[in-house]
Amino acid sequence: MLLQQYLSTRQYTEHLCNPLEIEDYVPQAIEYTSPPKWHLAHTTWFFERLILKTYADNYCEFNADFDFLFNSYYQTLGERAIRAQRGIFTRPTVQQVYQYRKYVDEHMHHLLSRPISDKVQQLVTLGINHEQQHQELLITDLKYTLSLNPLHPEYSPEFNLVTDKNQDDGWVEIKQGLYEIGHQQQSFCYDNELGRHKVWLPDFQIANALVTNAEYIAFIEDGGYTQFHYWLDEGWQWLNSEQISAPLYWKKIDGQWHYYTLAGIKLLDPDAILSHVSFYEANAFACWKGMRLPTEFEWEAASQYLDWGKRWEWTSSAYLPYPGFKISEGAIGEYNGKFMVNQMVLRGASVATAKSHQRYTYRNFFPPHLQWQFSGIRLVKDHD
Amino acid sequence: MLLQQYLSTRQYTEHLCNPLEIEDYVPQAIEYTSPPKWHLAHTTWFFERLILKTYADNYCEFNADFDFLFNSYYQTLGERAIRAQRGIFTRPTVQQVYQYRKYVDEHMHHLLSRPISDKVQQLVTLGINHEQQHQELLITDLKYTLSLNPLHPEYSPEFNLVTDKNQDDGWVEIKQGLYEIGHQQQSFCYDNELGRHKVWLPDFQIANALVTNAEYIAFIEDGGYTQFHYWLDEGWQWLNSEQISAPLYWKKIDGQWHYYTLAGIKLLDPDAILSHVSFYEANAFACWKGMRLPTEFEWEAASQYLDWGKRWEWTSSAYLPYPGFKISEGAIGEYNGKFMVNQMVLRGASVATAKSHQRYTYRNFFPPHLQWQFSGIRLVKDHD
Amino acid sequence: MLLQQYLSTRQYTEHLCNPLEIEDYVPQAIEYTSPPKWHLAHTTWFFERLILKTYADNYCEFNADFDFLFNSYYQTLGERAIRAQRGIFTRPTVQQVYQYRKYVDEHMHHLLSRPISDKVQQLVTLGINHEQQHQELLITDLKYTLSLNPLHPEYSPEFNLVTDKNQDDGWVEIKQGLYEIGHQQQSFCYDNELGRHKVWLPDFQIANALVTNAEYIAFIEDGGYTQFHYWLDEGWQWLNSEQISAPLYWKKIDGQWHYYTLAGIKLLDPDAILSHVSFYEANAFACWKGMRLPTEFEWEAASQYLDWGKRWEWTSSAYLPYPGFKISEGAIGEYNGKFMVNQMVLRGASVATAKSHQRYTYRNFFPPHLQWQFSGIRLVKDHD
Amino acid sequence: MLLQQYLSTRQYTEHLCNPLEIEDYVPQAIEYTSPPKWHLAHTTWFFERLILKTYADNYCEFNADFDFLFNSYYQTLGERAIRAQRGIFTRPTVQQVYQYRKYVDEHMHHLLSRPISDKVQQLVTLGINHEQQHQELLITDLKYTLSLNPLHPEYSPEFNLVTDKNQDDGWVEIKQGLYEIGHQQQSFCYDNELGRHKVWLPDFQIANALVTNAEYIAFIEDGGYTQFHYWLDEGWQWLNSEQISAPLYWKKIDGQWHYYTLAGIKLLDPDAILSHVSFYEANAFACWKGMRLPTEFEWEAASQYLDWGKRWEWTSSAYLPYPGFKISEGAIGEYNGKFMVNQMVLRGASVATAKSHQRYTYRNFFPPHLQWQFSGIRLVKDHD
Repeated sequence: MLLQQYLSTRQYTEHLCNPLEIEDYVPQAIEYTSPPKWHLAHTTWFFERLILKTYADNYCEFNADFDFLFNSYYQTLGERAIRAQRGIFTRPTVQQVYQYRKYVDEHMHHLLSRPISDKVQQLVTLGINHEQQHQELLITDLKYTLSLNPLHPEYSPEFNLVTDKNQDDGWVEIKQGLYEIGHQQQSFCYDNELGRHKVWLPDFQIANALVTNAEYIAFIEDGGYTQFHYWLDEGWQWLNSEQISAPLYWKKIDGQWHYYTLAGIKLLDPDAILSHVSFYEANAFACWKGMRLPTEFEWEAASQYLDWGKRWEWTSSAYLPYPGFKISEGAIGEYNGKFMVNQMVLRGASVATAKSHQRYTYRNFFPPHLQWQFSGIRLVKDHD
Repeated sequence: MLLQQYLSTRQYTEHLCNPLEIEDYVPQAIEYTSPPKWHLAHTTWFFERLILKTYADNYCEFNADFDFLFNSYYQTLGERAIRAQRGIFTRPTVQQVYQYRKYVDEHMHHLLSRPISDKVQQLVTLGINHEQQHQELLITDLKYTLSLNPLHPEYSPEFNLVTDKNQDDGWVEIKQGLYEIGHQQQSFCYDNELGRHKVWLPDFQIANALVTNAEYIAFIEDGGYTQFHYWLDEGWQWLNSEQISAPLYWKKIDGQWHYYTLAGIKLLDPDAILSHVSFYEANAFACWKGMRLPTEFEWEAASQYLDWGKRWEWTSSAYLPYPGFKISEGAIGEYNGKFMVNQMVLRGASVATAKSHQRYTYRNFFPPHLQWQFSGIRLVKDHD
Repeated sequence: MLLQQYLSTRQYTEHLCNPLEIEDYVPQAIEYTSPPKWHLAHTTWFFERLILKTYADNYCEFNADFDFLFNSYYQTLGERAIRAQRGIFTRPTVQQVYQYRKYVDEHMHHLLSRPISDKVQQLVTLGINHEQQHQELLITDLKYTLSLNPLHPEYSPEFNLVTDKNQDDGWVEIKQGLYEIGHQQQSFCYDNELGRHKVWLPDFQIANALVTNAEYIAFIEDGGYTQFHYWLDEGWQWLNSEQISAPLYWKKIDGQWHYYTLAGIKLLDPDAILSHVSFYEANAFACWKGMRLPTEFEWEAASQYLDWGKRWEWTSSAYLPYPGFKISEGAIGEYNGKFMVNQMVLRGASVATAKSHQRYTYRNFFPPHLQWQFSGIRLVKDHD
Repeated sequence: MLLQQYLSTRQYTEHLCNPLEIEDYVPQAIEYTSPPKWHLAHTTWFFERLILKTYADNYCEFNADFDFLFNSYYQTLGERAIRAQRGIFTRPTVQQVYQYRKYVDEHMHHLLSRPISDKVQQLVTLGINHEQQHQELLITDLKYTLSLNPLHPEYSPEFNLVTDKNQDDGWVEIKQGLYEIGHQQQSFCYDNELGRHKVWLPDFQIANALVTNAEYIAFIEDGGYTQFHYWLDEGWQWLNSEQISAPLYWKKIDGQWHYYTLAGIKLLDPDAILSHVSFYEANAFACWKGMRLPTEFEWEAASQYLDWGKRWEWTSSAYLPYPGFKISEGAIGEYNGKFMVNQMVLRGASVATAKSHQRYTYRNFFPPHLQWQFSGIRLVKDHD
């Protein structure tokens, strides 16, 4: 079954690349994104470097230079290419990267066709989850790159990803009390979800529905981007220096809001759920509404009552270790812990997240100014 | 009594400037510091702008241009001089700034000699606390400026501020449970301390003593600054790009550690309490020790058992609003709330903090890379 | 014959791209370089925009968006894509760009098969020369991009371009006197060569041979890069901030100098002519030798006696207008004149320059810090 | 007589500082300016370091640290304080700097009261000329610093410096031919003026009058700053990125042009000679007029017929060595030669230049974007 999971995950990554031209695989439009080619190779390197090279008998690495090219940020594993230069490596070619994938898949197939240790099983599961994260990033990054092209290229007509609507409205009321937060470890989770612990929560009400485009337009039209008192000071500096006046991909054409989608440029759907806002924008919107964002603990406590999984939802929680959090030995210890400063937690999952990758204890995190995720807003109020 | 408090606070600020030459009042060495002249004028402007101009009868402002020059960051109160340019305004002269102080003090004296409303009383108390904060910044900023001078000028022989020692050692054990956190409001506090609320804490042990210079040297000598796995990723980037390899003001001369103090350059005292480390360094040191920093809640819960008030102590808590936190109307609403992102909380107080300005609920905050505060480290362990 | 010239120039550009993979066409490694795809399209746009759209009957443009994408710097011709973003446009694809070339070539073929006006003839000649410049840039830029790849990819085994040697040695002696400088206009030249005028030159001697790798190694080994007094102040700052200690593409491997060439990484040939130095380096080397670089006027006066055309040779002349220089009306006026500040003149031609594009009055120009050209050094001395 | 020159030069520097407050001596508003205190000390250091320490018997230096603090850019003479940090050194105090001047003056007085060698005589003359340059910079830099202050402080009511008018109009006609350029060496000059040499000049006409404020306003009102084709490409980028739309210190108040002068803010005098333009602006203005700037050789050849000495006049010549230019041995070799790249020559002298410091062979030079000099425009036309 692990083999099945492995193979289907690997195939799905390649399936996502079906609509791409060779040229689309190459560029890195901004430092925090990566080229499709790099995502394809890096996820493969992860299996080769952490599993095959240690646990497969007589494994012979595909190309010794790939270790330098496709290591992302694992200092434990040696020198890496500079992050900002992923878009200038024209070789290996796309075809060679697919050969690399094939080669590693064959060896993984062989490895997983026999009894494996718990340790290997855990690493394979981690590798699968890692690849799922990169599937999402591949789509998210691709949208960013294509959006800059004045030709507004379409990735795929079925892949709009931003027209889904809320199923529900109203408010869920949560009573004050001690809640258990964190993963219970019966199944896979990342290390940052571990350390199940008690958190005292106050009374609060949390919205069933996420904020829609129409609601956000009301904020814009009420001068939301021109009034400093809705904004955190850093957010205000950000919008002024970057000249931000709308969510990412929004563009006013002949007086009408449009947005770039993976199906090309479209008229904005007012009823669809808002996407591509930064934490600064999410926080300012909530402030304008006289409400606030949930903490990640409130979100987790309420999650069973909510319809979630369409947008990454900004919380008001900074990304910090749970009580008892320990960084693991070796490379996998670099997966999460070293990023626990100056980032905000997002909960839920986005339309680009694999279903089997979603869980209510999942802690996603990004710096507060980034808009390129499929990120939205859920409001909380303290009392009626 | 408020008048007395007002006058003594104002006098103490000027007392701190006694050892200064006129030239010392002028420069701004780096954007996050301010010139002594500016501190003297800005604290005065605070009383003039928020109190006298509204609540004193027929008050005539000292100089209309000062509103532009000495507003720090209150957007509610109009345009301000660019923060990075505080060091280029040679006029008003130091003498004129003292005249400004005298003028405002006379009017405040008059105002406070009569019955005043609760509102005014609150604002005056805020202004006094505000000036106390700037007394501390004045000293902290001055140290930074003088330290860059190759002549190593002495501010005052009595004002060393970094040779104090721990009174205590051992560990305080705190039991898990629900603790009340936040100010109880019988006396003055800032808005960010309000919203007293329950927090569940796990068992932990917190050190009576702060980390000493000798302990920190052991970290350095063990390669602390050259091993990435002790560091947050941003911290590692920071130390590499800024070429940090010791606390601020430390300098090795002929193989021996020295540090610049306000009494000139001195041989480092190994038994003295460590000062001038960033959050990144504090966190890395704790990691090297196999321990951690306290959360601000743990710190507050344990504070009654601790000897504190010599260093600002980095906590592992990001600076976030307490439950129910509300930003006040008008300018004073800009005091705290808008900075609640990408900063870490420090608890305690430093040797430069006025005694009457210290309380166990006080939440100081700075970005994680700054070293120029008198900031130190208190360790926590989860179990023996 | 013009048609023949047109067609062979166009074919040669595509011939240069034969060894490329699709991926190689995409990236822009640094702002002053461009992707091969862009060079292919921009040269085509030049013919379409300046000739076909005005002078071909009923010409229908290939794609209206290309005007935005493939205009380089002609403000007269409207808005352009930001120069630094040429590497992120994955569409049009390489195949579409070749279709664009084919389409324009067909229309040009048609236009040039009939009688054309002098004006059109001049513009076509300009377009051919323009494309020749981009042929050279294509190779020069490609080398830069491939060199950054740790796989050291080979462009073509025949295309080394840096192993050619001097044919001659000794010195040419030129007598003081009035010399005529500038183009005589019987054939094509750029506007910056016009304005033939007298220049008084002193006696000088100019080297028959260009500086070799071995001579430059002597400079390096004598501490050339560590002694400020050989360097212009800006050059000294440049080498310190960019950490330059050798020509571009040089790398010491196991104690031996190697260099990246278009045929892969090779052991440095000491007898080959030096390449890839900046003006700062050329000037410092000459200073170390106790000699100097020629002015562009000295170079031109001596050129008939010299073996030149293998390297762009840095002169000591700033790029300035000749007497009577006039900027032409319209877009072609932007070709040269607006760049006449803060650049140095290079004379000669490089191994990457088309033969028919070389002439002794040609004025090439680049900022003094750039190394990526096939640029070398010819020395001058004032007397024995 | 040299002693007399020495003493009067030194006194004049201090005379210029009479109107200053202590605070005015401290700040460095931008990297290319220096604080008055630094000018006072650096000129003194020049005499101490280059003359007294070598040629005065038993000379004991005033303070060993001053070598580090007050060396400007002489690498030959050892390490220096970073140029951008001249404004943060509050010590030595202004009073101590005056003591330093007094101390050095006494020793120079003693030295110059006895027979001295030619070498010393030359160095003293160089030191006097050096101090005259810094007198001018002191005023120019001071204007820049004071101008940023919203209080618009006045330096001195007599010191306006920008209201002088042209005495003459019409054109001087110069015939083509060989002209001798450079200094003849009967009296003091800088090394960059040496190497008297022939230059062939074409026929040209040069204006008797400099461009006035009124003429420049016509350029502004005709859209001069919004039309790219008047501008060099770098100039166009400069005005867009720096948001330049008028000469430095100009400000429109209630629809009327004003300018900051050393006598405070004043209504612009339309008949006064234009000041504080960059080379980019001078070149664009000339282009708009259908004329051009003179080369430095044309300027020198015509200078005997012109009324000059009120503004530094931008020429179209890049700052390059004259034929035979040799960099001197030792520190004085760093005076001029190492700056000969990416700068433009200015000829004449400004209202802030000492009379005895003016000569028609003088070559001043600055980067093309700087406006803070008293720099103006003289036009040339090639024929009627």
